[in-house]
Amino acid sequence: MAITIGVFDSGFGGLTVLRELLPLIPGAHYIYLGDTARLPYGSKSQTTIARYAAESARFLESQGASHLVIACNTASALAMDEIRDAVAIPVTGVIEPVVEAAQKRHPDADVLVLATPATVQSHAYQLHCAGHGLRATEKACPLLVPLVEEGWVGHSITRQVLRIYLREALATCAPKAVLLGCTHYPLIAPAIQDTLRELGSHAEVIDSARATAAAIERAIHLTHPPSTGPTTFQCYATDSVEKFARLGSQFLNQPIPTVELLDLGG
Amino acid sequence: MAITIGVFDSGFGGLTVLRELLPLIPGAHYIYLGDTARLPYGSKSQTTIARYAAESARFLESQGASHLVIACNTASALAMDEIRDAVAIPVTGVIEPVVEAAQKRHPDADVLVLATPATVQSHAYQLHCAGHGLRATEKACPLLVPLVEEGWVGHSITRQVLRIYLREALATCAPKAVLLGCTHYPLIAPAIQDTLRELGSHAEVIDSARATAAAIERAIHLTHPPSTGPTTFQCYATDSVEKFARLGSQFLNQPIPTVELLDLGG
Repeated sequence: MAITIGVFDSGFGGLTVLRELLPLIPGAHYIYLGDTARLPYGSKSQTTIARYAAESARFLESQGASHLVIACNTASALAMDEIRDAVAIPVTGVIEPVVEAAQKRHPDADVLVLATPATVQSHAYQLHCAGHGLRATEKACPLLVPLVEEGWVGHSITRQVLRIYLREALATCAPKAVLLGCTHYPLIAPAIQDTLRELGSHAEVIDSARATAAAIERAIHLTHPPSTGPTTFQCYATDSVEKFARLGSQFLNQPIPTVELLDLGG
Repeated sequence: MAITIGVFDSGFGGLTVLRELLPLIPGAHYIYLGDTARLPYGSKSQTTIARYAAESARFLESQGASHLVIACNTASALAMDEIRDAVAIPVTGVIEPVVEAAQKRHPDADVLVLATPATVQSHAYQLHCAGHGLRATEKACPLLVPLVEEGWVGHSITRQVLRIYLREALATCAPKAVLLGCTHYPLIAPAIQDTLRELGSHAEVIDSARATAAAIERAIHLTHPPSTGPTTFQCYATDSVEKFARLGSQFLNQPIPTVELLDLGG
């Protein structure tokens, strides 16, 4: 039987992780849940975020998931313990893998973390980086999510905004690596890498979606032989399935033929 | 005794309405409630929005408000009946006043409404405009709220984004008036007016905050003599009072010395 992998995010962003998983672990069945009715998690209390994330995790386990990916920075920062308590399957968040990938490539280095204001305020990356011997500067980039959601991925406006944010950040640190602390940012990873070079920085962009998918692949590879069956996925959203299918297909980089509406309560 | 006016919004935006009210109705006491823990309303169901707005309205009435201003486009579009049922005091929304102001100055005209995607999707402005003999084109401007919240009110990036949105809109209509269908937009009203001129349009920007404040003033003037006492205000927020005081002062254009945290439940 094919392995089933559950992927959870408050919105569409986590689809960048699913996009990396699909070719990396073929023959698996993926269930993606976007808790779009209750986003943004970033502005909510830790208790509320933990309750929402645990509910979503339980749903994915009830659908047969044997591995769970928390492809949401806010939940990864604030609710990993509660999620692990809520389910009996292994859970991987999105912060640890990217920090580990950075540490492996640039041990003891200064790194720059780009993230939403809520993630920066939690200082979760700073804490994880310190635990791995990395000195992290965290930079809040509030306009990047709206720009990606507007679809302006290759737009000159996005380039200009990146130049402003990165120039501000590079005035305070000289990083060896730049960590993408938001699941929306992999869509503009090439623009971030280009802008860094333009500003005279040789920092390497570490893609969180790719690092997370690679961590899952290593974990699953240990216990499961590669499957030769078809790779399939099913998407659930808690609000506007039409918007999810439309916006989400940009993140997944392929059409999302059907999205099921799920009611997890208020 | 001074008249007490309650002003409600899901966030900070409604402070642009309070900013217009303060000099227009001096000697009054204002109570502002920003339901920041539960924003954005735009992505929630009509039932949920109506319940949240009714709770907030009841709170403001319980604090002694004798007039209520719904300075929130989503609630004004979707929950006016439920709010009026919830309280015994007169209630003024933010849509009717700006549409009436446009109709008075440009009867039977084509108008352009700039708003958030959620407000555009509700077509509340189109409906109200049609009821006043105006033909409305609605244009969703998803980046304007994030740009205003970033504080980039006079920034060249904001100008460029306005140029893109307005050029797209003016390709489909030739409006006599441009209605600001979001309480964040009054902060960039001068930039919108300039950009329209740059693009060869003679349309007049109708400021929703100013139009709403003027409508309240007319209503209160009928029953209350002008007061010569001090003008005072008190702010409540349902999340992060620090963020409210910091961001809100930009919208109010004056410091907000104290913000009280209010728990309206999940």
